[in-house]
Amino acid sequence: MRTAYCGTLNHTYIDQKVTLCGWVHRYRNLGSLIFIDMRDREGIVQVFFSPDYPQTFCVAGELRNEFCIQVIGNVCIRTEKNKNRSMPTGDIEVCATNLSIITRSESVPLDFSKNNNEDIRLKYRYLDLRRPEMANRLKARSRITSIVRQFMEKSGFLDIETPVLTKLTPEGARNYLVPSRCHIGKFYSLPQSPQLFKQLLMISGVDRYYQIAKCFRDEDLRSDRQPEFTQIDVETSFMSAQEVMALMESLVHTLWQKIKSVSLHNFPVMTFAESRRRYGSDKPDLRNPMELIDIADCIKKMEFLGFSKPLNNATDRITALRVPGGAGLTRKQIECYIKFCKNYGLNGISWIKIYHRSTGLSGISSPLIKHLNEEIIGKLLDRTTAIDGDIIFLAADLEDAVTNALGALRIKIGNELKINNNSAWEPLWIVDFPMFTVDEQGDLTPMHHPFTAPQLMSIDQLRKEPETAIANAYDMVINGHEVCGGSVRINEWIMQKTVFDLLGISQDEQNQKFGFLLEALKFGAPPHAGLAFGLDRLVMLLTDSDNIRDVIAFPKTTSAICPVTDAPYTVNPLLLMELGMKT
Amino acid sequence: MRTAYCGTLNHTYIDQKVTLCGWVHRYRNLGSLIFIDMRDREGIVQVFFSPDYPQTFCVAGELRNEFCIQVIGNVCIRTEKNKNRSMPTGDIEVCATNLSIITRSESVPLDFSKNNNEDIRLKYRYLDLRRPEMANRLKARSRITSIVRQFMEKSGFLDIETPVLTKLTPEGARNYLVPSRCHIGKFYSLPQSPQLFKQLLMISGVDRYYQIAKCFRDEDLRSDRQPEFTQIDVETSFMSAQEVMALMESLVHTLWQKIKSVSLHNFPVMTFAESRRRYGSDKPDLRNPMELIDIADCIKKMEFLGFSKPLNNATDRITALRVPGGAGLTRKQIECYIKFCKNYGLNGISWIKIYHRSTGLSGISSPLIKHLNEEIIGKLLDRTTAIDGDIIFLAADLEDAVTNALGALRIKIGNELKINNNSAWEPLWIVDFPMFTVDEQGDLTPMHHPFTAPQLMSIDQLRKEPETAIANAYDMVINGHEVCGGSVRINEWIMQKTVFDLLGISQDEQNQKFGFLLEALKFGAPPHAGLAFGLDRLVMLLTDSDNIRDVIAFPKTTSAICPVTDAPYTVNPLLLMELGMKT
Repeated sequence: MRTAYCGTLNHTYIDQKVTLCGWVHRYRNLGSLIFIDMRDREGIVQVFFSPDYPQTFCVAGELRNEFCIQVIGNVCIRTEKNKNRSMPTGDIEVCATNLSIITRSESVPLDFSKNNNEDIRLKYRYLDLRRPEMANRLKARSRITSIVRQFMEKSGFLDIETPVLTKLTPEGARNYLVPSRCHIGKFYSLPQSPQLFKQLLMISGVDRYYQIAKCFRDEDLRSDRQPEFTQIDVETSFMSAQEVMALMESLVHTLWQKIKSVSLHNFPVMTFAESRRRYGSDKPDLRNPMELIDIADCIKKMEFLGFSKPLNNATDRITALRVPGGAGLTRKQIECYIKFCKNYGLNGISWIKIYHRSTGLSGISSPLIKHLNEEIIGKLLDRTTAIDGDIIFLAADLEDAVTNALGALRIKIGNELKINNNSAWEPLWIVDFPMFTVDEQGDLTPMHHPFTAPQLMSIDQLRKEPETAIANAYDMVINGHEVCGGSVRINEWIMQKTVFDLLGISQDEQNQKFGFLLEALKFGAPPHAGLAFGLDRLVMLLTDSDNIRDVIAFPKTTSAICPVTDAPYTVNPLLLMELGMKT
Repeated sequence: MRTAYCGTLNHTYIDQKVTLCGWVHRYRNLGSLIFIDMRDREGIVQVFFSPDYPQTFCVAGELRNEFCIQVIGNVCIRTEKNKNRSMPTGDIEVCATNLSIITRSESVPLDFSKNNNEDIRLKYRYLDLRRPEMANRLKARSRITSIVRQFMEKSGFLDIETPVLTKLTPEGARNYLVPSRCHIGKFYSLPQSPQLFKQLLMISGVDRYYQIAKCFRDEDLRSDRQPEFTQIDVETSFMSAQEVMALMESLVHTLWQKIKSVSLHNFPVMTFAESRRRYGSDKPDLRNPMELIDIADCIKKMEFLGFSKPLNNATDRITALRVPGGAGLTRKQIECYIKFCKNYGLNGISWIKIYHRSTGLSGISSPLIKHLNEEIIGKLLDRTTAIDGDIIFLAADLEDAVTNALGALRIKIGNELKINNNSAWEPLWIVDFPMFTVDEQGDLTPMHHPFTAPQLMSIDQLRKEPETAIANAYDMVINGHEVCGGSVRINEWIMQKTVFDLLGISQDEQNQKFGFLLEALKFGAPPHAGLAFGLDRLVMLLTDSDNIRDVIAFPKTTSAICPVTDAPYTVNPLLLMELGMKT
């Protein structure tokens, strides 16, 4: 029905007859001539109808926006003054000789020329996706998955599907349940990841597995979460963490090169501890140049209570955050930041503005001024490398409060004062995570998941000092977003059982939930490691989107509703009875 | 950890040092030498341990089947008499210099050298998948999807994910339901296909969509069905049925070429009516040369009641099935076939054996012999082209009974008497299906689904004579299996509404279930058509598998249980309470 796409017409088509199929993007009737912008998947081209073809001209008079049409016409070059440089096809236009209206359109509830309310956009998703901006995101996503697949296949990975109707998986969020009709009273659950199946595949000898897998979590949604999401799921045997990281880094290099024509630098590797210490986060945005700088030794002699007391406490931290050019902040802005920090439990916070560094105490302004002296201020300014016009926030409190609050403040100020280098790409690896977090009762929770192997630690050591165990895990962070996380897995059943024991999982529960894994580990399980990328997040980064819903064809709202189909929906109680259920 | 795969070692490695990782496939301790077959994903190679490396030899003594090991050694050519032609690496072997036992294995519950009970195979799936035969199926499946993706992408199709948590879909089988926790008392359902979403994508202007999509049906399982299965799902805009068929035929040509090195012939196109008439089926296996041959006119003068009565009835059919070489069938075998036909409701059935065609009546044997004469027998033998040694089954009854029974008998005899040309590939297209089937109450059911467009029929005509409507639908059949089915879709809301009305779907139900589709069709919906391949079936054909479970990594049993994880499972009633449910 067509010989070319609207969006791909160019010089080479001049004087050629083409047949186009698509939609009326914009309609202008000048009386003596009718112009339309005609749109298809590949873009937009201008088509005009003249009275030289009276029948066609007459039909063109009926056109309205979003009619689906077929046009036959000749491609002509536009006169110099009519060329439209902002349009890829702006040098040419199509003189229509024939026109068929395929289907008419009612007037659409979206205005393509301006921003529409997201509720309307989601309800009429099929119309919103007609906007070239949205269509291009779908195209980019398709291209991205294609590049990923080609890379993985070239690297010897097999694409293997794992079940969607399965048993609960232990990622922490809640599982969606699916009642079984054949086995009344029993349920499948939808996987939060294919974790256990991919480990079984390694035990099968598959050696290199990947899957672009739908995963599910039934939890309260945040704006950047969806109840169903997509993972690039990877697992390998006989490869070290470093080899897995190098391979996956190379995949990301390829993606950025092919999609954004950007050559990423080699990814630095930073330990979890260093990242927390310097950036107050395990997913630091390195586009932001600010760092948390420990200053306990600089202010040893300071007497102000808030800052001298913590010095004696090993669980406290005293840290500065220098904000370049921050001396211009108003008192109100500063108070606002201090209040922000208090939300993270940080109470011991103050600040110093530097106006004239060279004049020492008289060149600064600070609520702490009475407690400072030339020696302290000299050390502080040296340590923080502060210059005239900066502000330094000083924090002293429990370590977690200081780290979390200044980490968050760093991000907030970086964005608000536009300190970030937003055009940069700053990927890195975070490694050496603790195996467990310990709560106040001393209970352990796995930092990744319970299948992660410890680094160089015997089973005896692990049993004795689990809180010191470092996991053989790695996260890839780009511009402050965790794009993938993975680990070397436990491949010995006795180690796996030890971890389950440490987590307080009873023998019964171990058998019931993970019995098949423990058993499988007894049959010569290979060393294996893997990771998973969040595809939605990756596509967001690669398409400069800040809304996860913009990179999914039919997303759900933050309350997990599909606005197109109105799912979830009320079902006939008889259907439930068949499942042996009632609400 | 490795420098080569076991299975890829060959001449070019001779005298090289290699590091291998894998499993002990077979262990033979000859006292003075220890041999193992070592296995990894790519295959098997022989490794030997000699006392020349005493430490390694000592460790090798501990080896048992399925231990996971690392071997360093030198590749050597085998002596002529030790070469093993039945093994791809049979010309060489590896002389081990170092051996590490990575993990030990308990003795495995499967015997790889013989057929194991399927229950055990499914429970220990991760061990069964170690068998090269099974591992090769996974590899083939991965390669097949890769070829499909490359083909689709080269043809301009975008890979787009559609939701898994969605509203009920109307394919006929039952939907799995998923209770929502955010919206107590409401449910998502798992899709039986992405049908409605892919149509919405066409309305969005996506133009060419494909997806390798998980689909679900909650129904009583047959041996060749799975509760979750995979479709190659395709939809295009502005293409005719013929263009879609040509493109998809080309995909199948590519698959057979690349996977089986077979050049398929061009696919014949046969109407539904012709296929039913000639083969008693809408998915004829053309490897079977037998056809149903109508003979009503040949036996006009025959007086035997069973065959003369139907002649007067327009809903009856009188048909012969010639079985080449069937004259050798015993009376018992024949009775068995006649009984088989009765299961399909066919009562009027008889037979003629041809011993010496040239001697006419005296050269045949038949229960009908008294009712036959030379003229009838001459016509019958001419029409059926029977030769000496054949048997002809004759059937006269209601049309459906004759067609269905002889269609089934044709397949049964084809298999049992090995009449099929089993090495052949016989693909074809079936087209011109009726839009609807009509039941005894006169109620209509869509033959494909309610979104299929009729061929060249106005809305008025359709309303008047729906039972005569022919659908613009097409199925691809290969060797008697329907591998894909599709259609041109309705793209006008008034036609779609008419079909819903004809199907007896109330206005309320239309709004509730399909309101969003009806609305979407009002905004310039393009002409669109598509189809879906059953990927599991395609992989079965391409890997010569006769069990769907053999081509799925972790299949469910026929009672929809996952034997590895024991899903479905009993959940904590508290979890159900959170969902507002109880059993």
